[in-house]
Amino acid sequence: MEKPRVLIVMGSRSDMPAMEGCMAQLDEMHVGYEVRVLSAHRTPDAVLELSRNAKERGIQVIIAAAGGAAHLAGVLASSTPLPVIGIPIQTSALGGMDSLLSTVQMPAGVPVATVAIGKAGAKNAAILACQMIGLADPAVQKEVEAFKEAQAKKVLADSIVE
Amino acid sequence: MEKPRVLIVMGSRSDMPAMEGCMAQLDEMHVGYEVRVLSAHRTPDAVLELSRNAKERGIQVIIAAAGGAAHLAGVLASSTPLPVIGIPIQTSALGGMDSLLSTVQMPAGVPVATVAIGKAGAKNAAILACQMIGLADPAVQKEVEAFKEAQAKKVLADSIVE
Amino acid sequence: MEKPRVLIVMGSRSDMPAMEGCMAQLDEMHVGYEVRVLSAHRTPDAVLELSRNAKERGIQVIIAAAGGAAHLAGVLASSTPLPVIGIPIQTSALGGMDSLLSTVQMPAGVPVATVAIGKAGAKNAAILACQMIGLADPAVQKEVEAFKEAQAKKVLADSIVE
Amino acid sequence: MEKPRVLIVMGSRSDMPAMEGCMAQLDEMHVGYEVRVLSAHRTPDAVLELSRNAKERGIQVIIAAAGGAAHLAGVLASSTPLPVIGIPIQTSALGGMDSLLSTVQMPAGVPVATVAIGKAGAKNAAILACQMIGLADPAVQKEVEAFKEAQAKKVLADSIVE
Amino acid sequence: MEKPRVLIVMGSRSDMPAMEGCMAQLDEMHVGYEVRVLSAHRTPDAVLELSRNAKERGIQVIIAAAGGAAHLAGVLASSTPLPVIGIPIQTSALGGMDSLLSTVQMPAGVPVATVAIGKAGAKNAAILACQMIGLADPAVQKEVEAFKEAQAKKVLADSIVE
Amino acid sequence: MEKPRVLIVMGSRSDMPAMEGCMAQLDEMHVGYEVRVLSAHRTPDAVLELSRNAKERGIQVIIAAAGGAAHLAGVLASSTPLPVIGIPIQTSALGGMDSLLSTVQMPAGVPVATVAIGKAGAKNAAILACQMIGLADPAVQKEVEAFKEAQAKKVLADSIVE
Amino acid sequence: MEKPRVLIVMGSRSDMPAMEGCMAQLDEMHVGYEVRVLSAHRTPDAVLELSRNAKERGIQVIIAAAGGAAHLAGVLASSTPLPVIGIPIQTSALGGMDSLLSTVQMPAGVPVATVAIGKAGAKNAAILACQMIGLADPAVQKEVEAFKEAQAKKVLADSIVE
Amino acid sequence: MEKPRVLIVMGSRSDMPAMEGCMAQLDEMHVGYEVRVLSAHRTPDAVLELSRNAKERGIQVIIAAAGGAAHLAGVLASSTPLPVIGIPIQTSALGGMDSLLSTVQMPAGVPVATVAIGKAGAKNAAILACQMIGLADPAVQKEVEAFKEAQAKKVLADSIVE
Repeated sequence: MEKPRVLIVMGSRSDMPAMEGCMAQLDEMHVGYEVRVLSAHRTPDAVLELSRNAKERGIQVIIAAAGGAAHLAGVLASSTPLPVIGIPIQTSALGGMDSLLSTVQMPAGVPVATVAIGKAGAKNAAILACQMIGLADPAVQKEVEAFKEAQAKKVLADSIVE
Repeated sequence: MEKPRVLIVMGSRSDMPAMEGCMAQLDEMHVGYEVRVLSAHRTPDAVLELSRNAKERGIQVIIAAAGGAAHLAGVLASSTPLPVIGIPIQTSALGGMDSLLSTVQMPAGVPVATVAIGKAGAKNAAILACQMIGLADPAVQKEVEAFKEAQAKKVLADSIVE
Repeated sequence: MEKPRVLIVMGSRSDMPAMEGCMAQLDEMHVGYEVRVLSAHRTPDAVLELSRNAKERGIQVIIAAAGGAAHLAGVLASSTPLPVIGIPIQTSALGGMDSLLSTVQMPAGVPVATVAIGKAGAKNAAILACQMIGLADPAVQKEVEAFKEAQAKKVLADSIVE
Repeated sequence: MEKPRVLIVMGSRSDMPAMEGCMAQLDEMHVGYEVRVLSAHRTPDAVLELSRNAKERGIQVIIAAAGGAAHLAGVLASSTPLPVIGIPIQTSALGGMDSLLSTVQMPAGVPVATVAIGKAGAKNAAILACQMIGLADPAVQKEVEAFKEAQAKKVLADSIVE
Repeated sequence: MEKPRVLIVMGSRSDMPAMEGCMAQLDEMHVGYEVRVLSAHRTPDAVLELSRNAKERGIQVIIAAAGGAAHLAGVLASSTPLPVIGIPIQTSALGGMDSLLSTVQMPAGVPVATVAIGKAGAKNAAILACQMIGLADPAVQKEVEAFKEAQAKKVLADSIVE
Repeated sequence: MEKPRVLIVMGSRSDMPAMEGCMAQLDEMHVGYEVRVLSAHRTPDAVLELSRNAKERGIQVIIAAAGGAAHLAGVLASSTPLPVIGIPIQTSALGGMDSLLSTVQMPAGVPVATVAIGKAGAKNAAILACQMIGLADPAVQKEVEAFKEAQAKKVLADSIVE
Repeated sequence: MEKPRVLIVMGSRSDMPAMEGCMAQLDEMHVGYEVRVLSAHRTPDAVLELSRNAKERGIQVIIAAAGGAAHLAGVLASSTPLPVIGIPIQTSALGGMDSLLSTVQMPAGVPVATVAIGKAGAKNAAILACQMIGLADPAVQKEVEAFKEAQAKKVLADSIVE
Repeated sequence: MEKPRVLIVMGSRSDMPAMEGCMAQLDEMHVGYEVRVLSAHRTPDAVLELSRNAKERGIQVIIAAAGGAAHLAGVLASSTPLPVIGIPIQTSALGGMDSLLSTVQMPAGVPVATVAIGKAGAKNAAILACQMIGLADPAVQKEVEAFKEAQAKKVLADSIVE
């Protein structure tokens, strides 16, 4: 299997169902990844270490998924020059508005590339990671182009309702 | 001057005007404090170190003020057994709803004692810190009681509109 | 059994399922508590009396859980020098945004230490109470430290997804 | 001057500008009132006493104005059989959404008749009070009818834009 | 059976389950009522006529329940000197925030006495109506007092959790 | 001057500044209009009459602007087969979220064609009215096409930043 | 069957259940339509082409339904002089607030006639389309008038609750 | 000057003040860019063409800034394999919540990398673009690392409040 180029971190095992589409999309685009379940609040040092070492270990993009006061992506982004993508997980009380604002409203200097709340965001995080990696690797950019074309074809083929 | 018992951390110098009432209230209650301006996202290690050493340095309560994706209180809370109070700073775009949700919606296991957005919260953080310290120090609890009494008297004296 | 040091008040019996984690956490940390179901609006005098007598009865921290126009924590906080923790209960119409704002947006002078909406908040209220009590009682602070360590270990042991 | 039939309570002197239209409207409708500035959180006993004695003192309706975690109307409503009208005061951080939800989302058993945020609500509270008093006093009901007619006439006279 | 003194209007038969507690509470307090299902948007003339004739028919208070762009209470309030109580019905998309704002944010001159979203509001509308009617009818005010006392007793009897 | 084909109703003279762009746009597209200031709540009969007679008087589209519990468009829509466009006016407390939800969340059976909050919506209401009238009058449709072309040209001419 | 006069576009097959009432209403009013499932983001050219050709193909009104960052109606509106109606589809995370704001908050120059979130909006979009077409076709305007009358009769017949 | 590698598109000249920090940051990191003012709704073809040709013209990342129903980033993202960063512009009515949701809540298949509302987001978009380009160009990655280090040093040097 390919060496991981994407590091996926989620705040809790309970985020796994929402995240499956992310891994499936990376598989489909033939981009290797590794998955960790770590908490920005319960294991801050492990999260920072993961982030600090990511580039040296060959990681190109970090994807972080968390809910509520979702600090995971922000903490990871604090300690790496790599782009960090944040997926706000849907929450039962506030629908994920808390996760979204905690992920996207980062202060000047430390961006998190935020995608949609929940499953759509999880799949899009994978595509976005491939778009980024595609800047350095034409084969991955081709995967993105092929995906977009196939997606458009499928929509068009299915577009007429009888 | 008294050795600091409260550590006040704010995410940016621009939070200072909102925070002045916090320091003034601690002064009024004769509880020592120290103030740091540090960013959870720009200087994560310094924030974690501050938090990890706080107890040994004699700090009893940590107060953190931040706006937007306000992770400062959460990051501080991750690495100390001390209680951490979070003040959500008002923001121009969303009024501080982002700051509030990022501060209060902490996952199980790592509480942040959140107070109101902005200046009311800043003053209340000081009072809350004194209420906590008062559990160990009767003199500080007396300060709280005296403050509450004086406050009630002032309201009552001023209650009738002619 | 240990003399109660934490007073837990909830606005309605229907808040009990959301609150179980609070009691369980205090049990785990060996801190005694007593539980009352009282309403700020239906029995205001009983609530104020409870609050006024709490300190004399040996209570150190008050935890209040309520939903909607959640005034319980605020009313309790009005009449005691003890720190009061507020848990906003999730509501069916507005998800708990009403409970959260009613609990956290207290005016200057009367803080409520607000935690997250619902079950995460209920557990965190217990931990926060122990962090406060830990300022006066090293044994309880040790409980907090042990809890944090165990929690981190469990997260780390479980962090790698195969 | 007429004996007060409406008791107006506001949480802070700073609510006065928003409340002026309330008093002006009661003056216009020739219904007596008295005004108190009291805080549900700073002087809970005084608020409860005010509420408990209101009926005996000849008060027919209570109007309460407060902002943020606006508990004033709810606390007043807890201890009187009289109808209580709540005016949510506009707030700088959240526009008054906090005041509105804290005032209106009362639990079953203790209603607060909530009107609009801010000045429109202040004027409407006065009219609503007169509508209530009008049930017992035909002269006041006539005032309401006259007001509505005059208002409609003024709108109609002014309705054509050239 | 007693002549109706309260007119209950709901925007749709589907509001009936949310409204049952309103009728039950009026029954309990021995205040007669009549119920109509009418739509401010589908039958505006019928709604206005209902409102205009209400006082002459002996109605003292109007209660209106509606969801979404909830104009029913406002339209009723436009054409009567009687107090109008608005109950915002919970909605599936926005939880009732739309109903609440459409009901409560009335312009100066035409108040609607708004209660909580959904079932709590429905019950409270009945109590509030009785509080208003109680200004003119001591027997109804006694019902309110008895209800409040019974409610407090029940809460107190049930307040200790073993 | 052309016979009015668009009826513009606004809830208050204070809505005029926000509405100027609406009239200017209709002028630019050579579509006649008349303007009335009427309140759904203060003059419900006049509003209904206006709506009921509009078609007979040659009106083709009704535009209604209101803020807060913005019922004006809905009330107009209740009594005409003509399309009704609603403009939510910005409000100081809630920014116009109240106006928007009160205007757009109409129940099945009575649509209001809602446009953006404030000035953008006011201008767009005029364009939308012309798009509707353009279905019956090719000259007006040509105005719309010319407007769109001119607009695109202006954007393109201005698109490069040096 | 009648030549399509309404073009219905939805962003996804999963929007079909919410949209059925739209087609049913057009059937009931004897206005022909065609249905397409196309995505503003996955097939932008096909969407623009559809929009650009609509008028020439005899379409009079375009109805677009989409959820989340709901750009479909806006993209269609960019390239046609025809009126475009937008239906915000309810979403699981944010209830449809995202769909609503993305649909209604269009910039000056490109209106979208927005209706309510979900099923009520879907039915109302059909009625609104008929109101627009009715400006050019008296038979369709008669359908609207008949619908409104029948609807009012049904409400009135059903208005008394025993 | 360096050939543009970043394409910045904003929906309106009025977005320029909010966007200045974006250009300044790219200047500081020595990454070339070009700026266009184009509207997704007024000039959809020009926007799509810009997007379709971007890669061939050597663009590596697209940054789009828009407010309200902010479709610009989404439309650009529809027609390029390049990563697209979206900046939600603050709005006067809703603070930018409309811009944020329209930008971030993209459907599965077409990601937009969303940053914070307003100026913080504008600066962060530039940094994020450099992080992406840095995957292919070590010199740019070094710029990012140098920026982060300098930023941390500046915060630390300024962290102690006397």
